[in-house]
Amino acid sequence: MRDNLLERRQKVLGRHTPLFYDKPLHLVRGEGVWLWDADGRRYLDAYNNVPHVGHCHPRVVQALCKQASILNTHTRYLDEHVVAYAERLLATFDPSLSNVLFCCTGTEANELALRIARETTGGQGIISTAFAYHGNSAAVSAISSVFTPPEKRGPFVRNIPVPDPYRDRAGRPDGELAQAYAAQVGDAIADFRREGVRFAGILLCTAFSSEGLPSLPVGYLPEVAAVVRAAGGVLIADEVQAGFGRFGSHMWGHQLHGVIPDLVTLGKPMGNGHPLAGVVARPDLVERFTRESMYFNTFAGNPVSCAVGMAVLDVLRDEQLLENARRVGDYVLNGLNRLKARHQLIGDVRGRGLFFAVEMVRNRASQEPAGEETGRIVNAMRDRGVLLSRIGIHNNILKIRPPMSFGIEHADLLLETLDQVLTAS
Amino acid sequence: MRDNLLERRQKVLGRHTPLFYDKPLHLVRGEGVWLWDADGRRYLDAYNNVPHVGHCHPRVVQALCKQASILNTHTRYLDEHVVAYAERLLATFDPSLSNVLFCCTGTEANELALRIARETTGGQGIISTAFAYHGNSAAVSAISSVFTPPEKRGPFVRNIPVPDPYRDRAGRPDGELAQAYAAQVGDAIADFRREGVRFAGILLCTAFSSEGLPSLPVGYLPEVAAVVRAAGGVLIADEVQAGFGRFGSHMWGHQLHGVIPDLVTLGKPMGNGHPLAGVVARPDLVERFTRESMYFNTFAGNPVSCAVGMAVLDVLRDEQLLENARRVGDYVLNGLNRLKARHQLIGDVRGRGLFFAVEMVRNRASQEPAGEETGRIVNAMRDRGVLLSRIGIHNNILKIRPPMSFGIEHADLLLETLDQVLTAS
Repeated sequence: MRDNLLERRQKVLGRHTPLFYDKPLHLVRGEGVWLWDADGRRYLDAYNNVPHVGHCHPRVVQALCKQASILNTHTRYLDEHVVAYAERLLATFDPSLSNVLFCCTGTEANELALRIARETTGGQGIISTAFAYHGNSAAVSAISSVFTPPEKRGPFVRNIPVPDPYRDRAGRPDGELAQAYAAQVGDAIADFRREGVRFAGILLCTAFSSEGLPSLPVGYLPEVAAVVRAAGGVLIADEVQAGFGRFGSHMWGHQLHGVIPDLVTLGKPMGNGHPLAGVVARPDLVERFTRESMYFNTFAGNPVSCAVGMAVLDVLRDEQLLENARRVGDYVLNGLNRLKARHQLIGDVRGRGLFFAVEMVRNRASQEPAGEETGRIVNAMRDRGVLLSRIGIHNNILKIRPPMSFGIEHADLLLETLDQVLTAS
Repeated sequence: MRDNLLERRQKVLGRHTPLFYDKPLHLVRGEGVWLWDADGRRYLDAYNNVPHVGHCHPRVVQALCKQASILNTHTRYLDEHVVAYAERLLATFDPSLSNVLFCCTGTEANELALRIARETTGGQGIISTAFAYHGNSAAVSAISSVFTPPEKRGPFVRNIPVPDPYRDRAGRPDGELAQAYAAQVGDAIADFRREGVRFAGILLCTAFSSEGLPSLPVGYLPEVAAVVRAAGGVLIADEVQAGFGRFGSHMWGHQLHGVIPDLVTLGKPMGNGHPLAGVVARPDLVERFTRESMYFNTFAGNPVSCAVGMAVLDVLRDEQLLENARRVGDYVLNGLNRLKARHQLIGDVRGRGLFFAVEMVRNRASQEPAGEETGRIVNAMRDRGVLLSRIGIHNNILKIRPPMSFGIEHADLLLETLDQVLTAS
């Protein structure tokens, strides 16, 4: 049956539509941090951030069903939901970021942010990192260096090296390392200038998620912002991974880094699975962009999406999920560090709130990436009932990013299973 | 309260986020073809095609709620819903169009189709009409001539004149007119060649909706397809407006026009308001594109979206809504033609199934467009409780495109109200 489903899938979706794991998982049910497959086997979800407050959270489902049965239409009519949700959402940002334009996906949010950046600065040049993923449209693919080879990125993109303090620090203090990284942004801007490309801005994931969740030196993003703004560009913070309290200490990743962006893009966790995304922006940028260019998105900001988005904010608050992310996050981090002390394969453990990176190396001195080993661990974890994935330019970093309701008992299961897998490997 | 809501809205969404009507409508409830405002007043919806099978259709809402409470995750796991829905959807297309890639919005679908066209042909040049709207991303805005001035369309776009048989026919038979229009496509391709731009394809709305729903000469699209393919390009049919049986006689607009496209984009009506869209394509194009370029869309094709999409197809079939579109559509068309006989302002009445265009002119001989008058009629209809809009390069064409459950009694109300408004104007 499962083989048959895979065959049927490939026939209609094509052979290259991505699937996780060597043995793809056929899921049929989700609840909280748990997923069940077609054979009734239960899996601990330590990977998915779309079901941000937990799979099928009853309050979110209820908000969805209630509003879907009352009214679901676009924003060319007045509607209380879109306004109330926008107000509530914006209250979590610096007051200078007082406008929001809604979208349906993170790709659409980054598309829109790039359009705003380019049309308001008059520039075309965009900087991203050398191992970034921001979405699947033409303009966003061009800056998504993970899947787009250099020859396809076009003349308007430059990539800075992935910040990798685990390898780069070499005893340097934070300030020095932050300046060294920010200087790479200055180099990219200078390169645009040499080629006659006017600079528009930089777009960075505030978790540097695809890049492997590096422990950035304090002061890095403020330094970058200063360099970017001095050159007339804007800072776009992609909060699709870090946003909605993932780090526990702050609602948004840029707040953790002590910087106020010009544009912020939101996605995945926003609607707990419902397609909801947005661009939060300085109002002068929105004013200038929308005065010249019509922006309208049929499904975005509709009453159902906004009711769902509001329910996610309600649950985050009422279930104190940022506090949970801090508390359980510290517990997991301690546990991962204990595993590091016992397993030589673990070169580095990083994390904040409920987002963790466990970097695997063949040798702690040489720091040689253990990509294949990490792939085997991900699949062995799946076989033992715990779902996670891997990231990083060498694909050697475990990505652990569970729903925000992940508790101590789930952390124990994750840590025990990882211990078993590392011991067996 | 309403003024206050407008003010609050502008504060958070900006001043230029579009709203319908001189007096914006504050809606709070929808059911079938009816909408209610905050004062409890009921409006007949003769405009919206997103609630394709009717606002808040109980079967669609039920499918949404049921699946949202069971499992909502992305397509990197195996799932029965996405496969079953893809199979059911593809069965409505020519067998040569046997692959589908899911998206969340029509913009994303057109983005993806453009990427596939460009990457598989190796060309960049895309043709659209001189008054087209296909979406809001950078690449799709460039071909959306309604809102993007020529200087912003870039070097890779050419626009053909809007086919306007009402003015262009001048006694010519269909074959001659079709060839004349197709020759304009050949001219655009030749212009690309002169400028050294390799041709990728043409993207056309099969209803030519923004363009004013022209009564295209028989043989037009097959002629265009021949010209495009002879030059190595692909034909992309945008079915966001015409699709899912809107024309009553066929499930897809291109089927009405007797042509098989290479790529078909789907959007608005697909999920009855739930963000669901897709690209249906020749499998060799999907194979070549996805072999080279990773395409993944987090929210697209998730179990909830696919359950909703399936419910829409079920309702279309079980409530015989294509047949309804034919029957009620003929009734409305006859009624509009009767109004034309009594009101000099109506220059032309066009329509198929439940999609109608009523073109207003100041003088039937000169065919001078009556843009301002049409604007007043749209607002007067709203004041009398019937919602419609206007389209066309001169903004002088009433756009009437109700939910597919529009019945004879609703048609009578629409026609009577339009008669009153035209009499009073």
